[in-house]
Amino acid sequence: MAGRIVARYRVTDADVREVAEAIRVEQTIEFPAELAPEWIRDSVVGRVEAVTDDEVELSYDPAVVGADPLQLLGVLWGNVSLFEGVRLVALQLPETVLELFPGPRFGVAGVRALVGAPDRPLLATALKPLGTSATRLADLAATFAENGFDLVKDDQGLTDQTWAPWAERVVRCADAVRRANERTGRRALYLPSLNVPGHRAVEQAHRAKELGAGGLLVVPGLVGFETLRALANDPDLGLPLMAHPAALGSWVVNRTQGWRHGLVLGLLNRLFGADVTVFPNAGGRFSFAPDECADIAAECARALPRIAPALPAPGGGITLDRVDDVLASYGRDVVLLVGGAVHRGDLAANARRLRAAVEAASPATASTAGRDAS
Amino acid sequence: MAGRIVARYRVTDADVREVAEAIRVEQTIEFPAELAPEWIRDSVVGRVEAVTDDEVELSYDPAVVGADPLQLLGVLWGNVSLFEGVRLVALQLPETVLELFPGPRFGVAGVRALVGAPDRPLLATALKPLGTSATRLADLAATFAENGFDLVKDDQGLTDQTWAPWAERVVRCADAVRRANERTGRRALYLPSLNVPGHRAVEQAHRAKELGAGGLLVVPGLVGFETLRALANDPDLGLPLMAHPAALGSWVVNRTQGWRHGLVLGLLNRLFGADVTVFPNAGGRFSFAPDECADIAAECARALPRIAPALPAPGGGITLDRVDDVLASYGRDVVLLVGGAVHRGDLAANARRLRAAVEAASPATASTAGRDAS
Repeated sequence: MAGRIVARYRVTDADVREVAEAIRVEQTIEFPAELAPEWIRDSVVGRVEAVTDDEVELSYDPAVVGADPLQLLGVLWGNVSLFEGVRLVALQLPETVLELFPGPRFGVAGVRALVGAPDRPLLATALKPLGTSATRLADLAATFAENGFDLVKDDQGLTDQTWAPWAERVVRCADAVRRANERTGRRALYLPSLNVPGHRAVEQAHRAKELGAGGLLVVPGLVGFETLRALANDPDLGLPLMAHPAALGSWVVNRTQGWRHGLVLGLLNRLFGADVTVFPNAGGRFSFAPDECADIAAECARALPRIAPALPAPGGGITLDRVDDVLASYGRDVVLLVGGAVHRGDLAANARRLRAAVEAASPATASTAGRDAS
Repeated sequence: MAGRIVARYRVTDADVREVAEAIRVEQTIEFPAELAPEWIRDSVVGRVEAVTDDEVELSYDPAVVGADPLQLLGVLWGNVSLFEGVRLVALQLPETVLELFPGPRFGVAGVRALVGAPDRPLLATALKPLGTSATRLADLAATFAENGFDLVKDDQGLTDQTWAPWAERVVRCADAVRRANERTGRRALYLPSLNVPGHRAVEQAHRAKELGAGGLLVVPGLVGFETLRALANDPDLGLPLMAHPAALGSWVVNRTQGWRHGLVLGLLNRLFGADVTVFPNAGGRFSFAPDECADIAAECARALPRIAPALPAPGGGITLDRVDDVLASYGRDVVLLVGGAVHRGDLAANARRLRAAVEAASPATASTAGRDAS
């Protein structure tokens, strides 16, 4: 299988060998195999490498993908996505395919350097709630930056609504964070949302940078993974990218269908260029299990040639009294994303308490992410 | 609920009222409701309009969406997509939201006019298998066009692989179809695939047009729905758009999660600008049931102010002996997409047989799509 794309699927409630045959044809020639020329059957159609009671491992010639990262998604998941009971559970990409992807421009080390935090966990929060004015959101941003948050991002639902129009919000919040940094001597970053169509994203990203943004929040489930890649590849942009999981849930939450959590929210986000990938932490408002979260963190850190590691950012209901547990689970290469909980009580005091917690994260805490950390 | 966005979700294995509360907050402010100002709780947070044993109907102020179609998807599905056991089963959009969408530029009547078929079912096929040279694909295109296919599209997996590079393929196939039309006096259209990132799609679409394309095949699950909208909105492009369902499966095939089939493959494709929407017909290689296919066709035809109806294109394993059944199911406003089956035996004879079948479709066949047709 050297040099080939290798994908393993779990098959539920169906004959594994039949499904294997269907996938390897469906994802390449979509054509009655017996009518195809022999060389196409041998070289273009996928190969069944192994079959067990409930899984099949298939491999593909990278020529099927060509130079197109979207076509990799097409080969792995195009028509198979329409099958019930098929889930992608493992993926190995040869270097020729990995070369199509930029990976994170900053990665773990780069984001650490930007915010001036060489080894502790990072701290992020979101500006909210929707409905709040740009002036008030900027006040919040100032308080967050002044009291120890490294990354202050727009809530993903803040787009360009009349309550806080995008351009006004970016100007005010970026300015508020810049001034807070002047007071503290720190280097907090403001990340506005960039929830615009792919064909406008690069232009809008440059506008955000001109207006003072220190990074960008991107929702690949809405704007497409290629928008991440376009931003990561832009040599003149140079802003770290945070990916939000909105609208991607159906890819992962159905236990017998879709993709393994880490392959989407860890690996894909990372390959396409996310420096930081947000996902709902176990035990919060969502359904992710601890091993699914560890999987995402592990894929952020998985050794890949040339592709920098990304930072996992568990969020979605982390309360202040759970911070130590979360840090113990993920190790130091993590962005702790605390949203609504920081608003319970004194905002500034809560922020300082969180900062103290990440500053105090024990040097004994593992610095690699994921399941090895606890 | 006049003037509001109304979404109904089915809830499985959870308390419906609890999930209703979670969704209406999660999809708007993502913030502890009790900490939000009263006006935001009243006006920005979604409203629970009705609750049954297993469903909840919620409504939202269109101001939450603003002028951004992607944010409509965010409000309907952003973080809710991360919940297990929640499925969007009904959707009503007010005119202020519908106005954000172009809908199909051509629609049923426009595509019929382009191919010169005022009332019969249309006939489509795909150029395949992957691995075939551009010269050979052009020969196939000529045979298809000459023998009665209205729409000859690239297989969705044909992108820019070395076997048949995109530009060479478009030139050769467009030319082959044009020359076939000169011989027959008909107006078959060639639709190349446009599987490129959103930020390159409009430029590549114009290139395809210059090279002779008569329409475009778009995969919104890979390039994003907004790419469809950008192409449909482009006043200088003026090509009909066919949407392919690859990579969108997880949105619909999980029975207790995702969206109702018709809302994605019918309504969303249509709103964002697809003139023709491809989906796997019941009884073929995929898992769609007859009522799910009828649902897609019904959403293509649903009465909406200003938005033209789209053409449903069932495919994915339609054999020649099933054509009459398919036509009986969908009525006359349908594109019959026959792929691999036409290659069994004599290609030209099979094409002529299919053409005769659609020509003969009884005038008694209902001309509106969907479940009323049988």
